[in-house]
This record gives sequence, structure tokens and C-alpha cells, in this order.
Amino acid sequence: MRISQLSAESGVPIPTIKYYLREGLLPQGDQTSATRAEYDQEHLRRLRLIRALLEVGRLPVAAIRQVIAAVDDERIDFHDMLGTAHYALSTPVEPHPEDEDWREARELVDRMIADLGWGVHPLAPTRNELAQTVVTLKRLGMPTSQEDLLPYASAAHDLVRDLDITKIPFDGPRDVAVETLVICEVLYGKAFDVLRRLAQESESTRILDVTPCSDDDASRVTRQGAHRDA
Amino acid sequence: MRISQLSAESGVPIPTIKYYLREGLLPQGDQTSATRAEYDQEHLRRLRLIRALLEVGRLPVAAIRQVIAAVDDERIDFHDMLGTAHYALSTPVEPHPEDEDWREARELVDRMIADLGWGVHPLAPTRNELAQTVVTLKRLGMPTSQEDLLPYASAAHDLVRDLDITKIPFDGPRDVAVETLVICEVLYGKAFDVLRRLAQESESTRILDVTPCSDDDASRVTRQGAHRDA
Repeated sequence: MRISQLSAESGVPIPTIKYYLREGLLPQGDQTSATRAEYDQEHLRRLRLIRALLEVGRLPVAAIRQVIAAVDDERIDFHDMLGTAHYALSTPVEPHPEDEDWREARELVDRMIADLGWGVHPLAPTRNELAQTVVTLKRLGMPTSQEDLLPYASAAHDLVRDLDITKIPFDGPRDVAVETLVICEVLYGKAFDVLRRLAQESESTRILDVTPCSDDDASRVTRQGAHRDA
Repeated sequence: MRISQLSAESGVPIPTIKYYLREGLLPQGDQTSATRAEYDQEHLRRLRLIRALLEVGRLPVAAIRQVIAAVDDERIDFHDMLGTAHYALSTPVEPHPEDEDWREARELVDRMIADLGWGVHPLAPTRNELAQTVVTLKRLGMPTSQEDLLPYASAAHDLVRDLDITKIPFDGPRDVAVETLVICEVLYGKAFDVLRRLAQESESTRILDVTPCSDDDASRVTRQGAHRDA
């Protein structure tokens, strides 16, 4: 197909496609004349992946280039290719080994992963990301022992094993697998986050309606009030 | 205590405290002379709340002002006060009732919440947030029926009921409850998200090590390779 059709099928404007070609995110088409190139289904699939990384994963172009290089480099095995996409999605966190709170938190994270028997690379940036969150929680006076975190880990593992991972086509084309991974992490992750906030409102309603510590009936009227709807 | 001690105890610099006082986020201290004011534990607690909303919740100052107004206005009941903080944390999403996909997604969200028996305000902005995520997933060809989403909803509900909600002191001071709500939503939410990504790496490792579709042993060597560590 020509670039105009590629644009129509993908919904990506021609100037944007040309930008991806220049940036090397999209492989060049088959040049059939000086001004004309042919594109195929692989280009269409690649465009979908770029859009998923850009719009869904909100990755910077440099990170997308890294992910695409891993998809294209057949010497990089399937698991490492997924790892590259996976790590590109995490927020880089500087380690602070000079800070005792940080060291303790990082040790807690490593010990918990080991105790759970999870297969996570020792250099996975996600370890630092979790350590930083633990430090922040601890400084806010919230419970952060391994016992406090394990139920979250176990719920996360159930969700991944029963739902997310079943959606990834491990035996399909490399770029489809990466695309699905990004969608699962970012979009089902977002869906879960919103569902959690909906459940929090619901539980809060339930608790405040049944426990005696709730406010008196007069002030309840404001529950249907305008400040919520603003 | 004087402003210098308030600063020392809270770790918030004096100019920042003065800014919060000017913006009305922090109530004025007790003026003991023309150049001197006294602050108490309530100011300290309020400073902690502002920092949690600002640094943890990443809320804009205007949204923080709204939350603080709800905390201070005793006519607003406990549940609505939490709702104000709760809704301030969500990403505002424009409804698109003219778009059929959007209408369908919103109907799905409303039906699911009703079927689950969740107590969620009909005008909760979280409903639109979930509808938008569903539309995006659907357009990417991912499964989004109620049956597909229910397991996520049920996992979210378990997490909230067993973990998040137990941390909120419903019978404590209003600002402590709001602070805990924000911390639970944002920080335990972040911890869960990172744990989910760690579990995904672990499950991907497990599946690729046992299924025959994994790459050959030669390319496996790169698993320990430099591209991961970059």
C-alpha cells in the first residue's frame, strides 16, 4: 500500500508517519520509484505499536527507539525484549545508598522478592522504584514492614497470573507481544486504579452509613449537595 | 511555637510556610505581637496534609484549596469531605455522549457498578475516567466486556476492603482521615503498581523458561547482557 493508504488504515497523519520514518521508528517502505514507496501489514502493525508506546505508555521518543531496537534485534531473546519495554515504562529512580532509610527499604524489597520466589533481574529498575515508595510511606508514618506489603504483593501476583499474563501472545510476533505488554501494564493498570478508587468510595459509603462515628443526619443532606457536582 | 520552630518540626522552609499562609491553605497563627505569631499542633498537622496533597498526590494548589475548604467546613459531612479529596485526585475526563463507543462504555461502567452493588455517586468523575479507559482498550482490540472487567473490579474491591480502608481513621480528626486517604490512594496505589510490574517480569520469566516457544539457548546469554543494565 502507499503512504496515503497506510495513513488511512492506521489513522496516523502522513506528516507523522514521515516523522517516524525519519526518526527510524518505522522501517523504510519498499522504494518503487523516486517518489513512491510501498508499505505492508508489518508497517501497519509497527505504527500501532508506536502509537501504543507513545499515547498509552506516554514514553518519550528516545525510549520508544530503544524498545523498537529490541523488537528488531533478533539476537535479543523474547524475554529480554519484553524486559526492555517493561523497564522503559518504569520511572527512573536514583538509588540513595548513603541514606539509611533508603538502604533499609531496598533491602526489604530484595528480601521480599527473594522470599516470594519471584524471578526478577537483580538490576531491574522496578526494585528502586518500590524502595523509593517504601521510604516515602515510612516517612509519612505508614506501615511498611514486609508483613504490611505482602498482601499487596500477593494481590498483584494473582492479578498478573490470572489476568494480565494470559493476554500476552508469547508465541506470536515480537511486536504484537510488546504491544500487548504495554497495553496490559498501562491500560488495564489504569482500569484497575480507577476501579480501586470506585471501590474506595463504595467502602467509605458503607462504613460511614453503618458506624456510629458518622456525622449527624442534618449534615448528611449535603451528600447530595452541589460541591460534589462542581 | 514560633514560625521557626514550626518550620524545624515540619521540615517545611519558612518562606514556603508564609506562602501557604498567604494562600489561605494554612490558618493564621495566634498574633502575639505585631511581628510575632504562635502556631500549634493543628498547624503542624495541616502542614503535613498540604505536603501530602502536594508532593504525594501531586495536586495543583487550587485543588488543595478545595480539599482544605472541605476539611474546614464542618457543615460538610465526613463522607463528602473524603469524596472531595477523592475526586480531586482523579484526572478530569470530558464525557463524549455524541460518540457511540463512549456511550456504550459509560453504560457498561454504570451497569457494572450497579450489578456490583457499589455505593458510588451518580456524578462521580471516576465513572467517566473508567469509561474513557474502556474506550481506549476497545479501540486497541482488547477485551472489555463486563465479564472481562469484573475480575479486576473484584480484585480491586478485595484490596480496598482488606487493606486500604482499614488504614483510614474514620473516627479521628478530619484532616488526618483525608491525609490517610490520599496516602492510601496515591502511595499504596503506587506500591501496588510497581509490585504488579515486578510480578509481570517474574511470570514472564516463568512462562518463557518452561514453554517450548522460548528462544534458543544461545540468545539466552543476552539475558545477563548490557542492554538491560544501561
